[in-house]
Amino acid sequence: MKKLINDPTSVVADALLGVEAAHPDLVRVDHEHQVIYRADAPVQGKVALISGGGSGHEPLHGGFVGRGMLDAACAGQVFTSPTPDQMLAATKTVDGGAGVVHIVKNYTGDIMNFEMAAELASAEAGVDVATVITNDDVAVQDSLYTAGRRGVGVTVFVEKLAGAAAEAGRDLDAVVAIAKQVNESGRSMGLALTSCTVPAAGKPTFDLPEGEIEVGIGIHGEPGRFRKPLAPASALAEELVTPVVDDLDFTGAPVIAMLNGMGGTPLIELYLMYGEVTKLLTARGITVARSLVGNYITSLEMAGCSLTLLRADDDLLSLWDAPVLTAGLRWGV
Amino acid sequence: MKKLINDPTSVVADALLGVEAAHPDLVRVDHEHQVIYRADAPVQGKVALISGGGSGHEPLHGGFVGRGMLDAACAGQVFTSPTPDQMLAATKTVDGGAGVVHIVKNYTGDIMNFEMAAELASAEAGVDVATVITNDDVAVQDSLYTAGRRGVGVTVFVEKLAGAAAEAGRDLDAVVAIAKQVNESGRSMGLALTSCTVPAAGKPTFDLPEGEIEVGIGIHGEPGRFRKPLAPASALAEELVTPVVDDLDFTGAPVIAMLNGMGGTPLIELYLMYGEVTKLLTARGITVARSLVGNYITSLEMAGCSLTLLRADDDLLSLWDAPVLTAGLRWGV
Repeated sequence: MKKLINDPTSVVADALLGVEAAHPDLVRVDHEHQVIYRADAPVQGKVALISGGGSGHEPLHGGFVGRGMLDAACAGQVFTSPTPDQMLAATKTVDGGAGVVHIVKNYTGDIMNFEMAAELASAEAGVDVATVITNDDVAVQDSLYTAGRRGVGVTVFVEKLAGAAAEAGRDLDAVVAIAKQVNESGRSMGLALTSCTVPAAGKPTFDLPEGEIEVGIGIHGEPGRFRKPLAPASALAEELVTPVVDDLDFTGAPVIAMLNGMGGTPLIELYLMYGEVTKLLTARGITVARSLVGNYITSLEMAGCSLTLLRADDDLLSLWDAPVLTAGLRWGV
Repeated sequence: MKKLINDPTSVVADALLGVEAAHPDLVRVDHEHQVIYRADAPVQGKVALISGGGSGHEPLHGGFVGRGMLDAACAGQVFTSPTPDQMLAATKTVDGGAGVVHIVKNYTGDIMNFEMAAELASAEAGVDVATVITNDDVAVQDSLYTAGRRGVGVTVFVEKLAGAAAEAGRDLDAVVAIAKQVNESGRSMGLALTSCTVPAAGKPTFDLPEGEIEVGIGIHGEPGRFRKPLAPASALAEELVTPVVDDLDFTGAPVIAMLNGMGGTPLIELYLMYGEVTKLLTARGITVARSLVGNYITSLEMAGCSLTLLRADDDLLSLWDAPVLTAGLRWGV
């Protein structure tokens, strides 16, 4: 295992020191609870958004804390759910009196711990908490850590769009409605060229022979749909586009697209894949109105990529274009 | 070799299709010459900035084309200088009557080809071309493709800061002066945990045994200073900071710092390294005023990182904070 770390047990704690040093203008860090807060949290009168999950998916979630996105992100150990006390601390801290939304990727541990935190925050401090679960991965039903579909790339879109709705002053019900609309209108599919190594494990999560890829990979290396020989990018783009557009109709609406890197794939390859994906979408009459190409929800140093498409509308496009000021997404300000 | 490509010979051409599809609002692409232009180039009356070099370092340079940075980037084949005809076409196209600056990393092929293009642009079209060479890498004097120091991370700072000066309406001499000041005030040092594979070569550029790292690596895998066993991040940070601060005094001025990923290292490790670096800088009385942590000048999927420090002043900080609208750096707009 070759990693830029001090010790497998202190990876998250040490990385949070770097986040704090790099972005004092955007965030502050509660090292005891391992929570990254928007610098000016709580924002009185604004619906607050919290997410979190296992670390190792950066910039998700800590890189999306800031104006126009999240109010807090709870960092679990690598590929391990944060604990309820982290989410409870975050929920109480960000509450500005207008309620708090928990954005939770559909993994059993995350769901359970966020649920417990929501109950405690309500009981202890009377915070009005609503939960939105993301489950956009079309690859598999049920998986290693999940009942039902896994939550992956659409989580980035939920955080941006619901975050913009909250920033615009919409109330808790309206923000939750946007978050649910985005999850229901988004689908993802990924593939891996290599495994990744969890620091505490010290060896690759799975073996993927030279010349083979795994289609439908999960962001923790959970098994996908099948393995097949490595193929040209044009054929691999088809493996991503087909299951996504077979699952939901993306024609007749403006689409927001993300071609996401898993962490170890160079940007030149991600752009190349995005070029192939857009050819296939155009041929199917699908119009991309906005796009992201880069590393947004990663799996440590895994090589590979995922595609997320969102069936948008004028309101979502306007929320997309609204200013955002985070380490991972920044525009309009 | 596992890569998301169609064919080793068409990697750059195919990736440029993706760049064009992803950023129609920011850039346009001349596929014949493989040049990425700022969408509204030429900007009349503004000094224009061009850079370029071998591909495989993305987002450098194409990701830094746009308002407040470059007017054009010439994409060579992977790790291979662009040809003079690419730079000539770019120089003529972006000239808005106020002169053109060529920002050239110090590699023999790049220098030679940019020089030829400058002479031709002057002779054929009377364009006033000035050249600024970056050579900030303290690792080695002379190298595989270089006489003198290699140009690396400071190139990102030159493009941002001279780009802001040009955008603010400064004239050719003033923009060149900023670019030279930035190069002279910046130093870099990198290290690699793994090699990378050039698509046309099909095998890793060099071998780096399990448990060893190369300190002072070049961005094309050129040899560094020495190899040593992998060590904790705190010790590796010392390997970066010491040679940089030994080469130039960074105390008593605001510093702009970049902890850059080589392409295959996860963001969580880059933040962790940045945390270690800032501890060392603070102990030496060096004050970081602005920072970047992420992949900015990469070496395909190489694992590793580099540190660049810039001794800034109030003018440079103000140019740093000026709006920038590119795929790779975006703020204030």
